[in-house]
Amino acid sequence: MTSVSGPSGSLPLPTFLTKAFSSTTSTPQRLTIDQVNPHVKEAQYAVRGELAVKSEQYRVDLAKGKSLPFDTVIAANIGNPQQLDQKPITFFRQVASLLENPELLEKPEVLTKSLGYKQDVVDRANRLLKDVKSVGAYSQSHGAPGIRQSVADFIERRDGYPSDKDSIYLSNGASGGVNTLMHIMCANANSGVMVPIPQYPLYTATLSLLNAKAVPYFLDEGKTWGTDVGDIKRALENARKGGTEVRAIAIINPGNPTGASLPSDDIKAVLRFAAEEGLVVLADEVYQTNIFVGEFVSFKKCLRELQGSEENKDGKFDAIQLASLHSISKGMVGECGHRGGYFELVGFDEEVKAQIYKFISIQLCPPVVGQCITEMMVNPPKEGEPSYELYKKEYDGIKEGLRTRANALFEAFKAMEGVDCQPPQGSMYLFPTIHLPEKAIKKAKEEGRKPDEFYCLRLLDATGVCLVAGSGFGQKEGTLHFRTTFLAPGTDWVDRIVKFHKGFMDEFR
Amino acid sequence: MTSVSGPSGSLPLPTFLTKAFSSTTSTPQRLTIDQVNPHVKEAQYAVRGELAVKSEQYRVDLAKGKSLPFDTVIAANIGNPQQLDQKPITFFRQVASLLENPELLEKPEVLTKSLGYKQDVVDRANRLLKDVKSVGAYSQSHGAPGIRQSVADFIERRDGYPSDKDSIYLSNGASGGVNTLMHIMCANANSGVMVPIPQYPLYTATLSLLNAKAVPYFLDEGKTWGTDVGDIKRALENARKGGTEVRAIAIINPGNPTGASLPSDDIKAVLRFAAEEGLVVLADEVYQTNIFVGEFVSFKKCLRELQGSEENKDGKFDAIQLASLHSISKGMVGECGHRGGYFELVGFDEEVKAQIYKFISIQLCPPVVGQCITEMMVNPPKEGEPSYELYKKEYDGIKEGLRTRANALFEAFKAMEGVDCQPPQGSMYLFPTIHLPEKAIKKAKEEGRKPDEFYCLRLLDATGVCLVAGSGFGQKEGTLHFRTTFLAPGTDWVDRIVKFHKGFMDEFR
Repeated sequence: MTSVSGPSGSLPLPTFLTKAFSSTTSTPQRLTIDQVNPHVKEAQYAVRGELAVKSEQYRVDLAKGKSLPFDTVIAANIGNPQQLDQKPITFFRQVASLLENPELLEKPEVLTKSLGYKQDVVDRANRLLKDVKSVGAYSQSHGAPGIRQSVADFIERRDGYPSDKDSIYLSNGASGGVNTLMHIMCANANSGVMVPIPQYPLYTATLSLLNAKAVPYFLDEGKTWGTDVGDIKRALENARKGGTEVRAIAIINPGNPTGASLPSDDIKAVLRFAAEEGLVVLADEVYQTNIFVGEFVSFKKCLRELQGSEENKDGKFDAIQLASLHSISKGMVGECGHRGGYFELVGFDEEVKAQIYKFISIQLCPPVVGQCITEMMVNPPKEGEPSYELYKKEYDGIKEGLRTRANALFEAFKAMEGVDCQPPQGSMYLFPTIHLPEKAIKKAKEEGRKPDEFYCLRLLDATGVCLVAGSGFGQKEGTLHFRTTFLAPGTDWVDRIVKFHKGFMDEFR
Repeated sequence: MTSVSGPSGSLPLPTFLTKAFSSTTSTPQRLTIDQVNPHVKEAQYAVRGELAVKSEQYRVDLAKGKSLPFDTVIAANIGNPQQLDQKPITFFRQVASLLENPELLEKPEVLTKSLGYKQDVVDRANRLLKDVKSVGAYSQSHGAPGIRQSVADFIERRDGYPSDKDSIYLSNGASGGVNTLMHIMCANANSGVMVPIPQYPLYTATLSLLNAKAVPYFLDEGKTWGTDVGDIKRALENARKGGTEVRAIAIINPGNPTGASLPSDDIKAVLRFAAEEGLVVLADEVYQTNIFVGEFVSFKKCLRELQGSEENKDGKFDAIQLASLHSISKGMVGECGHRGGYFELVGFDEEVKAQIYKFISIQLCPPVVGQCITEMMVNPPKEGEPSYELYKKEYDGIKEGLRTRANALFEAFKAMEGVDCQPPQGSMYLFPTIHLPEKAIKKAKEEGRKPDEFYCLRLLDATGVCLVAGSGFGQKEGTLHFRTTFLAPGTDWVDRIVKFHKGFMDEFR
C-alpha cells in the first residue's frame, strides 16, 4: 500500500485514492520515467541499442544450451576487436603487466630469461612508472606530463609540424574527449554542431544530452562518401536562418560508419570553409591507421600547410581552432576496454583551455593504464629495438587480416541482389546500401519499424549476426543501409548473411 | 591579421575595424571565453583548483632545482594514496599483471616458483578473464556480468539482505556514477538535489554543469558533523517554496570533507524523511571501510530493516528509491588511477533503469581493469586461502597507518591556537575550524580572497603543504575551515603546518 504524508503524519490510502491525491500534490512521489531528464530520453545510441541487447540475450541463451537457429552470436555491430579473438599486441601488454606489478622489475633475470621479456619492455615500464609513479594514483587531469609530451612528439613526427604537450588532453577513449568538447562549446539550446550524415551516433547523442542542436550535412555516397562543401554550406546557412548558433563542424576521417578516407584537398576545403565561417573544427581521427587506400593526412597537417601557404597572406587561417581526437580502441591496437585516447587543441585561447581543464578535473583523470597504452601506441618499438620485430609482425598481421576480411565482405556484398557497396578505404566498417522489396517495407511499417531495422532484426533472429541499421547513423531520405564491422574472424558469418539475404529477398519478392 | 568573409570573398581588415565588424556580424568569430558554456564556467571544483595547480608548479620548480622555502610539496589536498607512497595491495596487482599479460598464465612454474604468485592469484585471473575475455575488450556498459554478480554477493554478505546483479552498475570511480545519476534525475533548471554543507564539490559542480539546483542542508559540527533532519526539512521546504522540484538527497557517509561516521539511527531518520518527501536517496559510501569509531552501516541495510519492521505496516518504505555508490579509490585499496567503482539501485523502475543503461552506453563502458579491481576489492582473499595472510597484513598496516596519522594530526590541531577539530571518525580527512585574527580577514579582503583561501595560499607558499580551503566545500556563514587528508607519510609536514600557523597568528595579531 502507498501512503501520503500530511501534517498529522503518515496515513495509508487505497491505491485509487492515492493516485488521485498524488496527481494533485506538489510533492513528487518517486522518480518515474516521466520525471527522467527528457534530454536523456531523447538521446539515441543504436550501436548498443535494442539489437545489441537482444544479441547479448541470445549469447546467454546459447550458453545455457537453448536451441536457436545458429550456434554462435557474431557481434558485427561494434568495433570491439578483442571480444572477437584479436590478440593484443605483446609489447603493450608485457609493459602493462609490469606497470601493474612493479615488483616484477626487481627480478630482471626471471623476466628476461624465463618469461622472454625484452630489455625495451623493462625500460619502457620504468620510464612510464617514473612519470605516473603508480598506475593506481590519480594523474594530472589532462594526463601525466611525460605521456602528453610523448603524444606531442608523435604528432610532430607524423605531421612535420611542432606540437605542444600543454595542448594535449588525454581522455577516456575518444568518446570522453568528444563529451568534453561538446560540453564546452554548447552554451545553450540554440548552440549547434555540424555532424556528418551518416555519423557515429556519439555525436548526436551527446548533443541531445546537452539539449543542443545537431546540424546535419550529408556525405556523398556517390563519391565514396566524401565531403561536399557546397552541401555543408547550405546546411550551415539553413541552420543559421533558423536561429541556430553553429559553433563547430565535426568530421570523422577515416569515416565511421562509411569507411571513407578523405584526400587532403577535401580536408583543406573543409578548413577553408571553417575559417570563413568561424567554426571550430572537430576532427575525429581515431581510424588514422586503418587505411587501405592512399594515406592518412591529418587535419593538423593540412591546417599548418594552409597557414604557411600563399593563401594565408591575409592571415585568414591564423585564428582557426582545431581539436583532433585519437584513441587506443581502434587501429591495430584495439584496446577498447582500457579506455584511452587524447585530443590536441590548436588555436584555442588559454581562458578556454582553463575551462576545459576544470571540466575534466571534476571527473579527476582518465584511467592511468589507458594513458600508458596511449603512450605506447604513439611511441611503439622502433626498428632495431629488441621488441620491434614481433611488434611489426603482429601489427602487420592484424592490418592484413582486416584488409582481407574487408575485401571478402565487399565481394560478398557486390554479389548480393539489391546491395550496393563502396569499396573499403579505411576504418573498420562497410556501410552498404540495401534496396528492399516494397513488401518488406510494408511489413516493417506494420510492425512499427524502420525497414532497415526490420531487416537487421530478422537477420539477427535467423543467423545470430548483429549489425546496426543505417537509421542508427542517419541516411538520406529514401535510402537504406546497414553497418557491419569486418572484425569477426572467418567467413562463415558472411555466408550466413548471404544466405539470409537471399531468403529475405525471396520471401518478400 | 584577421579577416571577415563577405559575398565577394575574404577581405583583410585592420584589427580595430575587425573588432567593430565582429560585434555586429551574426557569424561568431572563434570560440572565446564569452561563448563557452556558462554552466561549465559556473562550476567550481576546488580540490583541483588554483591551489592544486600552484602546488604542481612548485613541484616542477623544485625538480628543476629552483630554491623555495621548502624542499618537498605535500599534496594533502586530495585523497590520492599511491601518489603518497602507499604501496598497492599485492594480491590486486599480481592478478592485474596476469590480466594484462595472460601469456604469463601459460608458465605456471615460473609464476609460482620464481615469482611467488600463489595459486589463488592464478585462479582469480583465470576466473576474471573468463568473464571479460580480455581487459582490452569493451564489456557490457554496466560492467561484466560475473563482476556485477560478485558485487551483488558482497552486498548480500555485508548487509544480510539480497542484492541483484542487474541492479549493479560498474562505473568510472564513484564520480562517474554520480555524474550518471545526476544526469538522469535533473530534468530541467528547476530540478534540485539536496547536498550536505560542507560537501565534496563533485556534487555542486555536477549540478552546475546540468544547470540544476543544489539545495544545501547543513551538517552539525557540534554533533561531530552529523545530520539534523529538522534542518534538512527546513531546507527542503524553503527550496520547494522557491519553486525548486527537489528530486533527491545526497548523503556522504562516512563524510567528506568532515570525516563523520553516521550511526544507523541517523541513517534511518534520513530514510524516513526521504520516504515521506518522495526523495531519491543518493548514498555516497565510498569511505565505508575507512572507519575508526563504531562500525559502518549501509543505507541499504537500514532501508531493508525499516522495510521489514513494524513501522512499515502501511508500506510507506516500499516505494523508496536508493542509489548507493562505492569506489576502489578509497578504503585501503586506494587504486584511484584505475577509475573503478559501482552503484547499486534499489527500488528503481525498469523504464528508468533502461534510460540509465542507455546513458552510460554512450560512453561505452568503464575501464575493464578497474572493473576487475572492483571485483577483487569486494571479494578479497579469504581466511585459509594462500594470499590471505599477506593481504590481511597489508590491509591492516594501511588502516593502522591512517589511524595513527589521523590521531597525530588531530593532536597537533588541538594544540594550535584558534583551531577546533572534531575527533577523527572515518574517511581520509580532518576538517578543523580555524578562527583567524580580524587583521588577517581584512588583509584577505584587500587581496580579493576568502579568508580561508588566503590562509591556505600563505601556507602553501611558505611550507609546500597543499590543503583545500573550507569555502571549497561550503561552510556556515562566518565560519572558516580547511580540509586535510591524513595520507602523507611522516610527521614533518604536520610540524610545518604547526610552525606556519604560529607565525601567521603572530603576524596578524
